[in-house]
Amino acid sequence: MISSVGNPKVKRIVSLQSRGREREKEKVFVTEGKKMFMEAPVSWIREIYLAQDKRERMEDGDFLERLRVCKEGGAVLETVSGEVFAKMSDTMAPQGILCVLGRPRFDRERILEKALRQKEEKDRPPLFLLLEDIQDPGNLGTMIRTAEGAGADALFMTGGTVDIYNPKTIRATMGSLYRVPFFYVDGLKETIELLRQRGITVYAAHLKGEKFYQEMDYAGGSAFLIGNEARGLRQETAECADCFLRIPMEGELESLNAAVAAALLMYQSRFEKK
Amino acid sequence: MISSVGNPKVKRIVSLQSRGREREKEKVFVTEGKKMFMEAPVSWIREIYLAQDKRERMEDGDFLERLRVCKEGGAVLETVSGEVFAKMSDTMAPQGILCVLGRPRFDRERILEKALRQKEEKDRPPLFLLLEDIQDPGNLGTMIRTAEGAGADALFMTGGTVDIYNPKTIRATMGSLYRVPFFYVDGLKETIELLRQRGITVYAAHLKGEKFYQEMDYAGGSAFLIGNEARGLRQETAECADCFLRIPMEGELESLNAAVAAALLMYQSRFEKK
Repeated sequence: MISSVGNPKVKRIVSLQSRGREREKEKVFVTEGKKMFMEAPVSWIREIYLAQDKRERMEDGDFLERLRVCKEGGAVLETVSGEVFAKMSDTMAPQGILCVLGRPRFDRERILEKALRQKEEKDRPPLFLLLEDIQDPGNLGTMIRTAEGAGADALFMTGGTVDIYNPKTIRATMGSLYRVPFFYVDGLKETIELLRQRGITVYAAHLKGEKFYQEMDYAGGSAFLIGNEARGLRQETAECADCFLRIPMEGELESLNAAVAAALLMYQSRFEKK
Repeated sequence: MISSVGNPKVKRIVSLQSRGREREKEKVFVTEGKKMFMEAPVSWIREIYLAQDKRERMEDGDFLERLRVCKEGGAVLETVSGEVFAKMSDTMAPQGILCVLGRPRFDRERILEKALRQKEEKDRPPLFLLLEDIQDPGNLGTMIRTAEGAGADALFMTGGTVDIYNPKTIRATMGSLYRVPFFYVDGLKETIELLRQRGITVYAAHLKGEKFYQEMDYAGGSAFLIGNEARGLRQETAECADCFLRIPMEGELESLNAAVAAALLMYQSRFEKK
């Protein structure tokens, strides 16, 4: 059991939690809580840290079985004291389990093919979210969570977007991070072109939009551009869209929260058949 | 000019920013930034603090005119050094203006009457949001912002809801705090009864819901119950609803973010006429 907060392993976890560069260097990320442990793909889990004082409360049959499977798969298990765990944790009320996971690599071509096959075979329109420079980790996490709910095929983000492995983003995804494929891209132009070639319409919510988002027909498949919280979409990105659409707003509001706008658009395109 | 961080006025602002109890005792709240100053009802503004080093950047004609009107209305203006302002500010990159405002008092009967009159005269369905024990300040602020966009008539919150005057909530409202009437209530039962008596249907998003939210007719007026982020609605509150509805979800998601769920419901009821 690790019981010294000065232990190098503890220092490393603290650094992985707080510094994106360290996470990037090791190509890993950190998740906390029982739910995030139980839902993680086993093959991603490399290290598991358990708080000695909270262990009993968590250990039901499913939990122990999963621990066994993870160890079999090569994951390293460490028990640490409550004090050490509090130091390692990014939350105020740690649940007592923390994992270090390898980063997923998604195959863009396969994901696109699958989306197009489902359109063909199941009349299910492809759905993508294209994010430009989203800055708030909670917003990004909420968008991933909503993307799973709306059955989005994948998410593309510019390099200027906040780190998807930021602890706040991970918490806000509520596990969706494990299930929604995502890609960081240099800019969105190439992705827009790629999607357009496959017959998917690229929409930007824009004040210049002439049609409201509830009036469109999304049956051919859609990709929604969502811009930075403060600046909105860059003009050159907005110009790449096939279509501007408007989200109605009453009162004196200038815009909706980015995650709210993304949710309205994704839910409309997936669940409102005309 | 105040240039000492030890000045009692500075200490008071720091305390108002960080402690809900202090804000409650003085019956005030604090907002930051030029937008929040420009959009505030003048009669609410009691004190204005300007950072000496950022003053020039802000002072355009509209800004100066508004300062004049506020002073005429009795607001006290103080200039403080950049260092002092950084101490008073709740943000990492302060814009250089901070206001102390009196709290609004809304008249519940008048708001209800207005909503019902608009239904009668303009065929505009009443729309209310009923929040139970929302804990995340950003979520609450986002819901207020979306409520303005959807033209909600008012928002009711249980006493267990996070303080609406929390600086993070205020920031997330983007000014909507000034424009959406709100009430703290002991529990939601009385409010539900009150709304029901006026012919407004009370909906709860619930896994037991048989109809999807896109299938309902909201023309008579709606009030949406939104529960705590972790626990959802208390059973006794959910049981008071007239109707359970479902928000569809794909994947393995258990729920959507509370602010996202509220947005989907409010936007559907306001803008999707059947």
